[in-house]
Amino acid sequence: METTTQIISKQELLNHWTGHRALTRKVIEKFPENDFFEFSIGGMRSFAKLVTELLAIEGPGLKAIVERNTDPFNEEPYNFTTKDEYLSAWDAATAAISNDWVGVDEGEFGETFNLFGYYNFPILQNILYFIDNEIHHRAQGYVYLRALGIEPPFFWERN
Amino acid sequence: METTTQIISKQELLNHWTGHRALTRKVIEKFPENDFFEFSIGGMRSFAKLVTELLAIEGPGLKAIVERNTDPFNEEPYNFTTKDEYLSAWDAATAAISNDWVGVDEGEFGETFNLFGYYNFPILQNILYFIDNEIHHRAQGYVYLRALGIEPPFFWERN
Repeated sequence: METTTQIISKQELLNHWTGHRALTRKVIEKFPENDFFEFSIGGMRSFAKLVTELLAIEGPGLKAIVERNTDPFNEEPYNFTTKDEYLSAWDAATAAISNDWVGVDEGEFGETFNLFGYYNFPILQNILYFIDNEIHHRAQGYVYLRALGIEPPFFWERN
Repeated sequence: METTTQIISKQELLNHWTGHRALTRKVIEKFPENDFFEFSIGGMRSFAKLVTELLAIEGPGLKAIVERNTDPFNEEPYNFTTKDEYLSAWDAATAAISNDWVGVDEGEFGETFNLFGYYNFPILQNILYFIDNEIHHRAQGYVYLRALGIEPPFFWERN
């Protein structure tokens, strides 16, 4: 456990994460109901399927870290059939993340944990992956929206 | 200046950033020369133009932070006509970032700086923006590659 001047506090990292989640929520909202489930480019997944992946990773991933639970990755509970269900699940996950965040101490971020029984990395790396992966798939949603002639939200809108 | 157990060290944040830069370099390499400059979806910029933006932000942005220089944002020096020139500029920027990184002390990340005379935020926020914005635009390149029938690199390839 290194103690020195920190460049980002635990609270700031949570705010960064939930700020991104707020933007992704806006992107989900922008999709017409049918395009959310059906539109895709180049054989990629629909935006609904990409959001299913994010729902299966982020909330459950943080919970698994807190519980040191190595249950396998499972998207099945997050395959919904309406945008409203996705938005409700999204909000529930954001609330769960903020709650579970208190269960990770500063000193644990450097500890290695085998997330989903498969991704054996320092907890910090897993959490950064959650955020990066969301930015990555959300940006694919931006291209889908542009291809549909819909203006996406500004990238810096985080609340 | 808060001193407590840090969740990410300055070196780890640099490694995270340069790891993303290594992946973006691979995405540039995957594009056929003409598609890099000409292909787009939904009226968006070509991947070359998106990389121009990244080149104008990241290296110059960090240098501006170190020098506390508020010169305006300027993409003009980064409009190249060949992929090779983009790749050379990308490598030069990655080297410059690693060099300039030593010029930002841990205690400065919380200081506010008016980047490019316009983005008046804590230095940490500006640096996280550099990384997030790269992930965002690179992901748009992933969709372009898929639309072109080209397999993009794996998201976790960071070296």
